[in-house]
Amino acid sequence: MAEEKRFVEEITPMDVDFARWYTDIVKKADLIEYSSVRGCCVVRPYAYALWENIQKTLDSMFKATGHENVYMPMFIPESLLQKEKDHVEGFAPEVAWVTMGGSEKLTERLCVRPTSETLFCDHYKNIIHSHRDLPKLYNQWCSVVRWEKTTRPFLRTMEFLWQEGHTAHATAEDAQAETERMLNVYADFCEKYLAIPVVKGRKTDKEKFAGAVATYTIESLMHDGKALQSGTSHNFGSGFAEAFGIQYTDKDNKLQYVHQTSWGMSTRIIGAIIMVHGDDSGLVLPPRIAPTQLMIIPIAMHKEGVVEKAEELKARLGEKFRVGLDLSDKNPGWKFSEYEMKGIPLRLEIGPKDIEKNSCVLVRRDTREKIFVSLDELEAKVAEVLEDIQNSLYNKALEHRESSTFTAETYEEFCDIIENKPGFVKAMWCGDEECENKIKEDTGATSRCMPFEQEVIGDNKCVCCGKEAKAMVYWGRAY
Amino acid sequence: MAEEKRFVEEITPMDVDFARWYTDIVKKADLIEYSSVRGCCVVRPYAYALWENIQKTLDSMFKATGHENVYMPMFIPESLLQKEKDHVEGFAPEVAWVTMGGSEKLTERLCVRPTSETLFCDHYKNIIHSHRDLPKLYNQWCSVVRWEKTTRPFLRTMEFLWQEGHTAHATAEDAQAETERMLNVYADFCEKYLAIPVVKGRKTDKEKFAGAVATYTIESLMHDGKALQSGTSHNFGSGFAEAFGIQYTDKDNKLQYVHQTSWGMSTRIIGAIIMVHGDDSGLVLPPRIAPTQLMIIPIAMHKEGVVEKAEELKARLGEKFRVGLDLSDKNPGWKFSEYEMKGIPLRLEIGPKDIEKNSCVLVRRDTREKIFVSLDELEAKVAEVLEDIQNSLYNKALEHRESSTFTAETYEEFCDIIENKPGFVKAMWCGDEECENKIKEDTGATSRCMPFEQEVIGDNKCVCCGKEAKAMVYWGRAY
Repeated sequence: MAEEKRFVEEITPMDVDFARWYTDIVKKADLIEYSSVRGCCVVRPYAYALWENIQKTLDSMFKATGHENVYMPMFIPESLLQKEKDHVEGFAPEVAWVTMGGSEKLTERLCVRPTSETLFCDHYKNIIHSHRDLPKLYNQWCSVVRWEKTTRPFLRTMEFLWQEGHTAHATAEDAQAETERMLNVYADFCEKYLAIPVVKGRKTDKEKFAGAVATYTIESLMHDGKALQSGTSHNFGSGFAEAFGIQYTDKDNKLQYVHQTSWGMSTRIIGAIIMVHGDDSGLVLPPRIAPTQLMIIPIAMHKEGVVEKAEELKARLGEKFRVGLDLSDKNPGWKFSEYEMKGIPLRLEIGPKDIEKNSCVLVRRDTREKIFVSLDELEAKVAEVLEDIQNSLYNKALEHRESSTFTAETYEEFCDIIENKPGFVKAMWCGDEECENKIKEDTGATSRCMPFEQEVIGDNKCVCCGKEAKAMVYWGRAY
Repeated sequence: MAEEKRFVEEITPMDVDFARWYTDIVKKADLIEYSSVRGCCVVRPYAYALWENIQKTLDSMFKATGHENVYMPMFIPESLLQKEKDHVEGFAPEVAWVTMGGSEKLTERLCVRPTSETLFCDHYKNIIHSHRDLPKLYNQWCSVVRWEKTTRPFLRTMEFLWQEGHTAHATAEDAQAETERMLNVYADFCEKYLAIPVVKGRKTDKEKFAGAVATYTIESLMHDGKALQSGTSHNFGSGFAEAFGIQYTDKDNKLQYVHQTSWGMSTRIIGAIIMVHGDDSGLVLPPRIAPTQLMIIPIAMHKEGVVEKAEELKARLGEKFRVGLDLSDKNPGWKFSEYEMKGIPLRLEIGPKDIEKNSCVLVRRDTREKIFVSLDELEAKVAEVLEDIQNSLYNKALEHRESSTFTAETYEEFCDIIENKPGFVKAMWCGDEECENKIKEDTGATSRCMPFEQEVIGDNKCVCCGKEAKAMVYWGRAY
């Protein structure tokens, strides 16, 4: 137990320094290794396996809603990037430029995609002609590059993995329906698979995507009370279509511009998983997304029959769950700590005494609760406990968010909450960007979203300027 | 039928112009669309679905052999690329250089990865310390960039999708075993899933990978008699480890260099599928890898019960096979051509007369054979026919390769075959690069590999210089 204790003590406790706790976990759970390339990380096998599970689930949700995957070039010629005015203004300052091919200087610079709207538009212009070609419901899994000054693993890196959906529709209504549909897919995914409750809403104009008519977002709350934008869905209207000339012939043989959307979720969401569920012993992974759901640790491995029994249980449980078995010569205490650090939802201990009693011990990662189970009912019990962990994690995160969500009627109250009570603040807003700017300058908080579920706080006056309010907004400091 | 005919006539027959036939298929089967970025293609949904099936199968074969996926940065700092001398010489002339980030000039140029040996080495140096850390069996799915002068869809593009395995081992023997194991995985995959027979062998020093001790290859033969390198597996020995300082402490507490391998397969293999199996009506896809294995086409859709029956069959067959159903208002002749172009292995026609007889018609893509089947035994028959198509495609390709593989004892004979009989030429070689150079200059043929299954042709003299031979080599013009 001494060794276990020492191992655990290597992490900075989250209440002492949340940022260091985060980077400690990222390193010690073998998620990330820093690389020789500034701002780029190596996504190690354990983190990549988590990403593969995220991909598999999201991808099947995309396909179930009629989307197809494609792959676009990673380069965008400068002239193409410049076609939509707001878009280029938003992205040009933060792109990496390829200027040489081999030993030759290029006649036109190519940027490494920061996002692929321009490439999809260029493609749609070529393949969309008639209303029969619509809708186009495309998605792409790839990496993108943004030249960030300061970076943090998963949360903000120069290169990151993501998916970007890009769709084209005949009507504005269809595009709006798609934008909302995909926001709901993201919200369902976060809540059902990642056990992360989210607030759904619309971004203010200040915070919307460069080139979008409207940006919708799901916002989640981290353990330290900061918000994280976890997925976004944009309605472009016909702005890109007009800039790129994407037109189709409608049923009355008239030329019309298409209406477009895009939506994305990235490896950032792994940062959210860490910061919503993790504790001072390391990661805590929701069972539905965990690369390994249950780890078997034999006790007194040298005793006759223990290894055989552990292997037998691995084979049995492996038919229904993602199961690991650690037969290394490290001691059980080390193994307990290691798999706690890695956030494996359930561990199964089996030793000579358990075998005698035809039973084993399950230990929950989230509550440390020990559960003694007869081997005869093992599968049913494991399924039940995993389900309970999944639900408990969600409920705990939801309670944390609810107890960290405040309302403010006056500016003084608002500033006090932001400063002293980490979390969301619900407050009314007049709709002016000036108030957003002032709030950001004074408090460091930004408007996270105008939630779909609107309500009136106090006397419906802007918390900043006191004018008549246009919307209730979730505010908070954010990653 | 007139419309069908016209549709088919749009492709250039392969005997008239194989290169145009190829690009016609690539466009008309909706595999590729050219992009605004020179030498980069859009991989369209149908081709991407094919790639997803390839990925799924290969990935499970990699995992079954103990490999884990990771993700490395896409950029390589110039100093890192330069660490291994042969490697940088091979790749530096054909890389894309990032020289600007936002509006700032970088102090060190970054190349977009043409392959990731240097990044994996840099990472291995950080995470390998003891013999207990070995082996490291990593793989990565990503895109890479090579600044090619002339490009062709799938076969040679500036950016392409691939997987690259990179492993580190304690001993030279382990590295050699891994190199051969992964070559065999590639060969099995090609033969069992893609129905493409391959020749396994070793590359000559002239043709090996920049930085490798030995490169192994699987070579396949296209319909036009040209060879295509379909997958490679490299043994690096300890060369990279010495250049990067990747050492571990062995069981006797001594420092040792690791031994490394890498191996890759790319979207090039889609070019092979097209050129091995395709015909003048378009693509022909092997059932095990086809995105859609069977397409249902209702006949006389306006007649009562036809659409319902077609939908019922889709639901039934969909439980066991990848099934499509075309309910569009295009006529059946158009649909027949369309799905022949797309190479769907089997089509199912169902009309009022079939329904009356409780039967339907299956039509094989490869032979056009019509098979009348009772609906009572549909699943069994479809499974049987798909299996037969898979085997027939393999056997046909094997027969083509065998009848296109020649032996040459004299140089005159050799040159005559290369010029007049497209295919492989088996001939003896003295081991000198000079003879390889002369053969290439005189005939355009290159050494494809020294096959594992060696034999002696004629009197064991080099076909070029007449000196004592060291190996039998497969020669041929290649993509």
